[in-house]
Amino acid sequence: MALNFITGNKDKLAEVQSILGDVAGLDIDLAEIQSLDAHEIIQAKLEEAQKHHAGEFIVEDTSLYLTATNGLPGPLIKWFMKSIGNDGLYKMAEAFGNFEAEGKTIIGYSNSANNIQFFEGSIKGTIVPPRGEGFGWDPIFQPEGYTKTFGELTAEEKNAISMRKVAVEKLKEHLKDSV
Amino acid sequence: MALNFITGNKDKLAEVQSILGDVAGLDIDLAEIQSLDAHEIIQAKLEEAQKHHAGEFIVEDTSLYLTATNGLPGPLIKWFMKSIGNDGLYKMAEAFGNFEAEGKTIIGYSNSANNIQFFEGSIKGTIVPPRGEGFGWDPIFQPEGYTKTFGELTAEEKNAISMRKVAVEKLKEHLKDSV
Repeated sequence: MALNFITGNKDKLAEVQSILGDVAGLDIDLAEIQSLDAHEIIQAKLEEAQKHHAGEFIVEDTSLYLTATNGLPGPLIKWFMKSIGNDGLYKMAEAFGNFEAEGKTIIGYSNSANNIQFFEGSIKGTIVPPRGEGFGWDPIFQPEGYTKTFGELTAEEKNAISMRKVAVEKLKEHLKDSV
Repeated sequence: MALNFITGNKDKLAEVQSILGDVAGLDIDLAEIQSLDAHEIIQAKLEEAQKHHAGEFIVEDTSLYLTATNGLPGPLIKWFMKSIGNDGLYKMAEAFGNFEAEGKTIIGYSNSANNIQFFEGSIKGTIVPPRGEGFGWDPIFQPEGYTKTFGELTAEEKNAISMRKVAVEKLKEHLKDSV
Protein backbone atom coordinates (compact mmCIF):
# COMPACT_ATOMS: atom_id res chain seq x y z
CA MET A 1 0.00 0.00 0.00
CA ALA A 2 1.26 3.45 -0.90
CA LEU A 3 2.48 5.79 1.79
CA ASN A 4 0.87 9.24 1.48
CA PHE A 5 2.76 12.34 2.59
CA ILE A 6 0.18 15.01 3.36
CA THR A 7 1.80 18.19 2.09
CA GLY A 8 1.44 20.86 -0.52
CA ASN A 9 5.19 21.51 -0.48
CA LYS A 10 6.99 19.93 -3.43
CA ASP A 11 10.45 20.44 -1.95
CA LYS A 12 9.56 18.60 1.25
CA LEU A 13 7.95 15.84 -0.81
CA ALA A 14 11.10 15.47 -2.93
CA GLU A 15 13.30 15.35 0.20
CA VAL A 16 11.15 12.63 1.77
CA GLN A 17 10.96 10.67 -1.51
CA SER A 18 14.75 10.78 -1.85
CA ILE A 19 15.01 8.90 1.44
CA LEU A 20 11.90 6.70 1.57
CA GLY A 21 11.47 5.99 -2.13
CA ASP A 22 7.85 5.26 -2.98
CA VAL A 23 5.87 8.08 -1.34
CA ALA A 24 2.88 9.83 -2.88
CA GLY A 25 2.14 13.50 -2.21
CA LEU A 26 -1.38 14.09 -0.94
CA ASP A 27 -2.19 17.78 -1.21
CA ILE A 28 -5.30 18.03 0.99
CA ASP A 29 -5.95 21.05 3.11
CA LEU A 30 -6.29 19.96 6.74
CA ALA A 31 -6.76 22.52 9.48
CA GLU A 32 -3.92 22.98 11.95
CA ILE A 33 -5.18 23.17 15.50
CA GLN A 34 -3.65 25.61 17.99
CA SER A 35 -1.04 24.04 20.25
CA LEU A 36 2.54 24.52 21.33
CA ASP A 37 2.98 20.75 20.99
CA ALA A 38 3.50 19.70 17.37
CA HIS A 39 2.50 16.13 18.27
CA GLU A 40 -1.06 17.29 19.00
CA ILE A 41 -1.28 19.24 15.75
CA ILE A 42 0.03 16.32 13.71
CA GLN A 43 -2.23 13.82 15.44
CA ALA A 44 -5.32 15.92 14.73
CA LYS A 45 -4.34 16.11 11.06
CA LEU A 46 -3.72 12.38 10.79
CA GLU A 47 -7.05 11.59 12.45
CA GLU A 48 -8.78 13.92 10.00
CA ALA A 49 -7.04 12.23 7.08
CA GLN A 50 -8.03 8.78 8.39
CA LYS A 51 -11.69 9.82 8.28
CA HIS A 52 -11.58 10.57 4.58
CA HIS A 53 -9.01 8.21 3.11
CA ALA A 54 -7.77 4.70 3.67
CA GLY A 55 -4.04 4.04 3.72
CA GLU A 56 -0.83 5.06 5.40
CA PHE A 57 -0.05 8.70 6.01
CA ILE A 58 2.74 10.92 7.15
CA VAL A 59 2.47 14.51 8.35
CA GLU A 60 5.51 16.58 9.27
CA ASP A 61 6.05 19.73 11.28
CA THR A 62 9.32 21.64 11.18
CA SER A 63 9.46 24.51 13.62
CA LEU A 64 11.78 26.83 15.50
CA TYR A 65 11.80 26.65 19.29
CA LEU A 66 13.40 29.48 21.30
CA THR A 67 14.72 28.71 24.77
CA ALA A 68 14.14 32.33 25.89
CA THR A 69 10.41 32.06 25.36
CA ASN A 70 9.86 28.51 26.59
CA GLY A 71 9.57 27.14 23.09
CA LEU A 72 7.58 29.91 21.46
CA PRO A 73 7.05 30.21 18.48
CA GLY A 74 7.32 26.41 18.03
CA PRO A 75 4.52 25.12 15.75
CA LEU A 76 3.04 28.64 15.64
CA ILE A 77 6.13 29.80 13.67
CA LYS A 78 4.05 30.48 10.53
CA TRP A 79 2.18 33.32 12.27
CA PHE A 80 5.34 34.87 13.68
CA MET A 81 6.86 34.87 10.20
CA LYS A 82 3.70 36.53 8.80
CA SER A 83 3.46 39.19 11.49
CA ILE A 84 6.98 40.06 12.65
CA GLY A 85 9.27 38.10 10.32
CA ASN A 86 12.91 37.24 10.94
CA ASP A 87 13.82 40.73 12.15
CA GLY A 88 11.07 40.53 14.75
CA LEU A 89 12.07 37.05 15.89
CA TYR A 90 15.64 38.23 16.37
CA LYS A 91 14.37 41.24 18.30
CA MET A 92 12.38 38.92 20.58
CA ALA A 93 15.39 36.74 21.37
CA GLU A 94 17.41 39.90 22.00
CA ALA A 95 14.76 41.30 24.37
CA PHE A 96 14.82 38.10 26.40
CA GLY A 97 18.63 38.04 26.38
CA ASN A 98 18.85 34.45 25.21
CA PHE A 99 19.65 33.41 21.64
CA GLU A 100 19.53 29.66 22.15
CA ALA A 101 17.19 27.85 19.75
CA GLU A 102 16.35 24.48 18.30
CA GLY A 103 15.13 23.55 14.87
CA LYS A 104 12.93 20.50 15.17
CA THR A 105 11.10 18.21 12.76
CA ILE A 106 8.43 15.89 14.07
CA ILE A 107 6.94 13.33 11.73
CA GLY A 108 3.73 11.53 12.53
CA TYR A 109 3.15 8.22 10.78
CA SER A 110 -0.25 6.56 10.66
CA ASN A 111 -0.16 2.92 9.54
CA SER A 112 -2.96 1.09 7.73
CA ALA A 113 -4.50 0.17 11.12
CA ASN A 114 -4.59 3.90 11.98
CA ASN A 115 -1.97 3.61 14.72
CA ILE A 116 0.12 6.74 15.02
CA GLN A 117 3.84 6.93 15.85
CA PHE A 118 6.20 9.89 15.95
CA PHE A 119 9.77 10.35 14.75
CA GLU A 120 11.93 13.33 15.56
CA GLY A 121 15.03 15.10 14.34
CA SER A 122 16.47 18.26 15.84
CA ILE A 123 19.44 20.58 15.66
CA LYS A 124 20.59 23.12 18.18
CA GLY A 125 21.62 26.58 17.13
CA THR A 126 21.70 30.30 17.78
CA ILE A 127 19.39 33.10 16.69
CA VAL A 128 21.40 35.76 14.83
CA PRO A 129 20.55 38.88 12.83
CA PRO A 130 19.28 37.71 9.41
CA ARG A 131 22.01 36.64 6.97
CA GLY A 132 21.58 34.89 3.62
CA GLU A 133 18.53 33.65 1.78
CA GLY A 134 16.60 30.41 2.14
CA PHE A 135 13.15 29.55 3.33
CA GLY A 136 11.33 30.90 6.39
CA TRP A 137 13.61 31.32 9.41
CA ASP A 138 16.73 29.99 7.62
CA PRO A 139 18.46 33.43 7.71
CA ILE A 140 18.33 33.78 11.52
CA PHE A 141 19.24 30.21 12.51
CA GLN A 142 22.94 29.43 12.85
CA PRO A 143 23.41 25.75 13.65
CA GLU A 144 25.83 24.77 16.41
CA GLY A 145 29.38 24.36 15.14
CA TYR A 146 28.79 26.50 12.07
CA THR A 147 29.61 30.14 11.32
CA LYS A 148 26.94 30.35 8.61
CA THR A 149 23.17 30.50 8.98
CA PHE A 150 20.85 28.00 7.31
CA GLY A 151 20.27 30.82 4.85
CA GLU A 152 23.96 30.99 3.96
CA LEU A 153 24.67 27.25 3.73
CA THR A 154 24.29 25.58 0.35
CA ALA A 155 21.36 23.21 -0.09
CA GLU A 156 23.83 20.30 0.13
CA GLU A 157 25.41 21.58 3.35
CA LYS A 158 22.02 22.21 4.87
CA ASN A 159 20.57 18.86 3.85
CA ALA A 160 23.56 17.09 5.37
CA ILE A 161 22.53 18.31 8.83
CA SER A 162 18.77 18.58 8.18
CA MET A 163 16.52 17.78 11.14
CA ARG A 164 13.93 16.65 8.60
CA LYS A 165 16.38 14.13 7.19
CA VAL A 166 17.07 12.70 10.65
CA ALA A 167 13.35 12.30 11.35
CA VAL A 168 12.71 10.65 7.96
CA GLU A 169 15.67 8.28 8.44
CA LYS A 170 14.15 7.17 11.76
CA LEU A 171 10.83 6.55 10.05
CA LYS A 172 12.67 4.59 7.36
CA GLU A 173 14.25 2.34 9.99
CA HIS A 174 10.85 1.78 11.55
CA LEU A 175 9.25 0.86 8.24
CA LYS A 176 12.06 -1.58 7.47
CA ASP A 177 11.65 -3.27 10.86
CA SER A 178 7.90 -3.59 10.50
CA VAL A 179 7.94 -5.26 7.06
CA MET B 1 -35.33 27.91 19.98
CA ALA B 2 -32.62 28.24 22.62
CA LEU B 3 -29.42 30.10 21.84
CA ASN B 4 -26.35 28.07 22.78
CA PHE B 5 -23.15 29.80 23.87
CA ILE B 6 -20.29 27.42 23.23
CA THR B 7 -18.00 27.97 26.18
CA GLY B 8 -16.64 26.24 29.23
CA ASN B 9 -16.19 29.58 31.00
CA LYS B 10 -18.93 30.23 33.56
CA ASP B 11 -18.03 33.93 33.98
CA LYS B 12 -18.33 34.61 30.27
CA LEU B 13 -21.61 32.70 30.20
CA ALA B 14 -22.98 34.77 33.09
CA GLU B 15 -21.90 38.03 31.39
CA VAL B 16 -23.63 37.05 28.15
CA GLN B 17 -26.76 35.85 29.98
CA SER B 18 -26.98 39.13 31.88
CA ILE B 19 -27.34 40.93 28.54
CA LEU B 20 -29.13 38.45 26.30
CA GLY B 21 -31.28 36.68 28.86
CA ASP B 22 -32.13 33.16 27.78
CA VAL B 23 -28.81 31.63 26.71
CA ALA B 24 -27.70 28.07 27.42
CA GLY B 25 -24.06 27.19 28.00
CA LEU B 26 -22.83 24.41 25.74
CA ASP B 27 -19.53 23.09 27.05
CA ILE B 28 -18.27 21.10 24.08
CA ASP B 29 -14.61 20.94 23.24
CA LEU B 30 -14.09 22.24 19.71
CA ALA B 31 -10.60 22.53 18.29
CA GLU B 32 -9.31 26.03 17.62
CA ILE B 33 -7.59 26.28 14.26
CA GLN B 34 -4.43 28.31 13.81
CA SER B 35 -5.04 31.78 12.44
CA LEU B 36 -4.33 35.42 13.21
CA ASP B 37 -7.91 36.18 12.19
CA ALA B 38 -10.38 35.36 14.96
CA HIS B 39 -13.23 35.28 12.39
CA GLU B 40 -11.69 32.19 10.78
CA ILE B 41 -11.27 30.44 14.12
CA ILE B 42 -14.83 31.22 15.19
CA GLN B 43 -16.27 30.18 11.84
CA ALA B 44 -14.50 26.81 11.98
CA LYS B 45 -15.90 26.21 15.47
CA LEU B 46 -19.43 27.17 14.48
CA GLU B 47 -19.31 24.91 11.42
CA GLU B 48 -18.10 22.05 13.62
CA ALA B 49 -20.95 22.70 16.08
CA GLN B 50 -23.50 22.78 13.24
CA LYS B 51 -22.41 19.28 12.21
CA HIS B 52 -23.25 17.80 15.59
CA HIS B 53 -26.13 19.87 16.94
CA ALA B 54 -29.17 21.69 15.62
CA GLY B 55 -29.92 25.18 16.87
CA GLU B 56 -28.45 28.62 17.22
CA PHE B 57 -24.91 29.10 18.47
CA ILE B 58 -22.56 31.79 19.57
CA VAL B 59 -18.78 31.54 19.89
CA GLU B 60 -16.68 34.38 21.20
CA ASP B 61 -13.00 35.26 21.03
CA THR B 62 -11.47 37.94 23.21
CA SER B 63 -7.85 38.64 22.40
CA LEU B 64 -5.07 41.18 22.74
CA TYR B 65 -3.66 42.74 19.58
CA LEU B 66 -0.34 44.61 19.70
CA THR B 67 0.34 47.29 17.10
CA ALA B 68 4.10 46.73 17.38
CA THR B 69 3.84 43.17 16.15
CA ASN B 70 1.14 43.62 13.52
CA GLY B 71 -1.54 42.16 15.73
CA LEU B 72 0.40 39.32 17.33
CA PRO B 73 -0.55 37.63 19.67
CA GLY B 74 -4.20 38.19 18.64
CA PRO B 75 -6.18 34.94 18.86
CA LEU B 76 -2.96 33.09 19.71
CA ILE B 77 -2.86 34.94 23.06
CA LYS B 78 -3.44 31.73 25.05
CA TRP B 79 -0.07 30.33 23.98
CA PHE B 80 1.77 33.56 24.74
CA MET B 81 0.26 33.55 28.22
CA LYS B 82 1.34 29.93 28.70
CA SER B 83 4.88 30.40 27.46
CA ILE B 84 5.99 33.95 28.32
CA GLY B 85 3.12 35.38 30.40
CA ASN B 86 2.44 39.04 31.06
CA ASP B 87 6.08 39.87 31.82
CA GLY B 88 7.09 38.41 28.48
CA LEU B 89 4.36 40.26 26.58
CA TYR B 90 5.48 43.52 28.14
CA LYS B 91 9.07 42.73 27.22
CA MET B 92 8.00 42.13 23.60
CA ALA B 93 6.20 45.47 23.35
CA GLU B 94 9.25 47.15 24.91
CA ALA B 95 11.62 45.49 22.43
CA PHE B 96 9.56 46.78 19.52
CA GLY B 97 9.31 50.24 21.08
CA ASN B 98 5.54 50.46 20.73
CA PHE B 99 3.09 49.89 23.58
CA GLU B 100 -0.12 50.49 21.63
CA ALA B 101 -2.64 47.66 21.90
CA GLU B 102 -6.26 46.76 21.41
CA GLY B 103 -8.48 44.39 23.36
CA LYS B 104 -11.01 42.94 20.99
CA THR B 105 -14.01 40.63 21.32
CA ILE B 106 -15.45 39.03 18.22
CA ILE B 107 -18.67 37.09 18.51
CA GLY B 108 -19.82 34.73 15.81
CA TYR B 109 -23.53 33.94 15.70
CA SER B 110 -24.94 31.03 13.73
CA ASN B 111 -28.71 31.14 13.25
CA SER B 112 -30.99 28.14 12.85
CA ALA B 113 -30.38 28.22 9.08
CA ASN B 114 -26.61 27.98 9.80
CA ASN B 115 -25.88 31.48 8.54
CA ILE B 116 -22.99 33.08 10.38
CA GLN B 117 -22.66 36.75 11.32
CA PHE B 118 -20.03 38.57 13.38
CA PHE B 119 -20.28 41.27 16.03
CA GLU B 120 -17.32 43.16 17.43
CA GLY B 121 -16.36 45.24 20.43
CA SER B 122 -12.94 46.72 21.03
CA ILE B 123 -11.06 49.03 23.33
CA LYS B 124 -7.74 50.74 22.73
CA GLY B 125 -5.08 50.81 25.39
CA THR B 126 -1.44 50.64 26.37
CA ILE B 127 0.78 47.74 27.40
CA VAL B 128 2.32 48.48 30.81
CA PRO B 129 4.38 46.49 33.33
CA PRO B 130 1.96 44.14 35.16
CA ARG B 131 -0.16 45.80 37.87
CA GLY B 132 -3.12 44.32 39.73
CA GLU B 133 -4.86 40.96 39.49
CA GLY B 134 -7.55 39.81 37.13
CA PHE B 135 -7.69 37.24 34.37
CA GLY B 136 -5.14 36.64 31.62
CA TRP B 137 -3.59 39.84 30.28
CA ASP B 138 -5.70 42.15 32.50
CA PRO B 139 -2.62 43.29 34.51
CA ILE B 140 -0.70 44.63 31.47
CA PHE B 141 -3.59 46.33 29.63
CA GLN B 142 -4.33 49.94 30.58
CA PRO B 143 -7.39 51.17 28.67
CA GLU B 144 -7.22 54.59 27.01
CA GLY B 145 -8.29 57.37 29.37
CA TYR B 146 -7.59 55.32 32.50
CA THR B 147 -4.63 55.28 34.87
CA LYS B 148 -5.43 51.77 36.08
CA THR B 149 -4.98 48.47 34.29
CA PHE B 150 -7.83 46.03 33.70
CA GLY B 151 -6.27 44.14 36.59
CA GLU B 152 -6.64 47.14 38.92
CA LEU B 153 -10.16 48.17 37.92
CA THR B 154 -13.06 46.72 39.88
CA ALA B 155 -15.27 44.20 38.09
CA GLU B 156 -17.95 46.93 37.79
CA GLU B 157 -15.52 49.47 36.31
CA LYS B 158 -14.15 46.90 33.89
CA ASN B 159 -17.57 45.62 32.80
CA ALA B 160 -18.68 49.18 32.10
CA ILE B 161 -16.09 49.44 29.32
CA SER B 162 -15.94 45.75 28.40
CA MET B 163 -15.33 45.00 24.75
CA ARG B 164 -17.28 41.78 25.30
CA LYS B 165 -20.29 43.75 26.47
CA VAL B 166 -20.20 45.95 23.35
CA ALA B 167 -20.08 42.91 21.08
CA VAL B 168 -22.95 41.20 22.95
CA GLU B 169 -25.04 44.40 22.85
CA LYS B 170 -24.61 44.48 19.07
CA LEU B 171 -25.72 40.87 18.83
CA LYS B 172 -28.71 41.72 21.04
CA GLU B 173 -29.75 44.50 18.65
CA HIS B 174 -29.45 42.12 15.74
CA LEU B 175 -31.57 39.45 17.43
CA LYS B 176 -34.24 42.03 18.27
CA ASP B 177 -34.36 43.23 14.66
CA SER B 178 -34.62 39.72 13.27
CA VAL B 179 -37.55 38.60 15.44
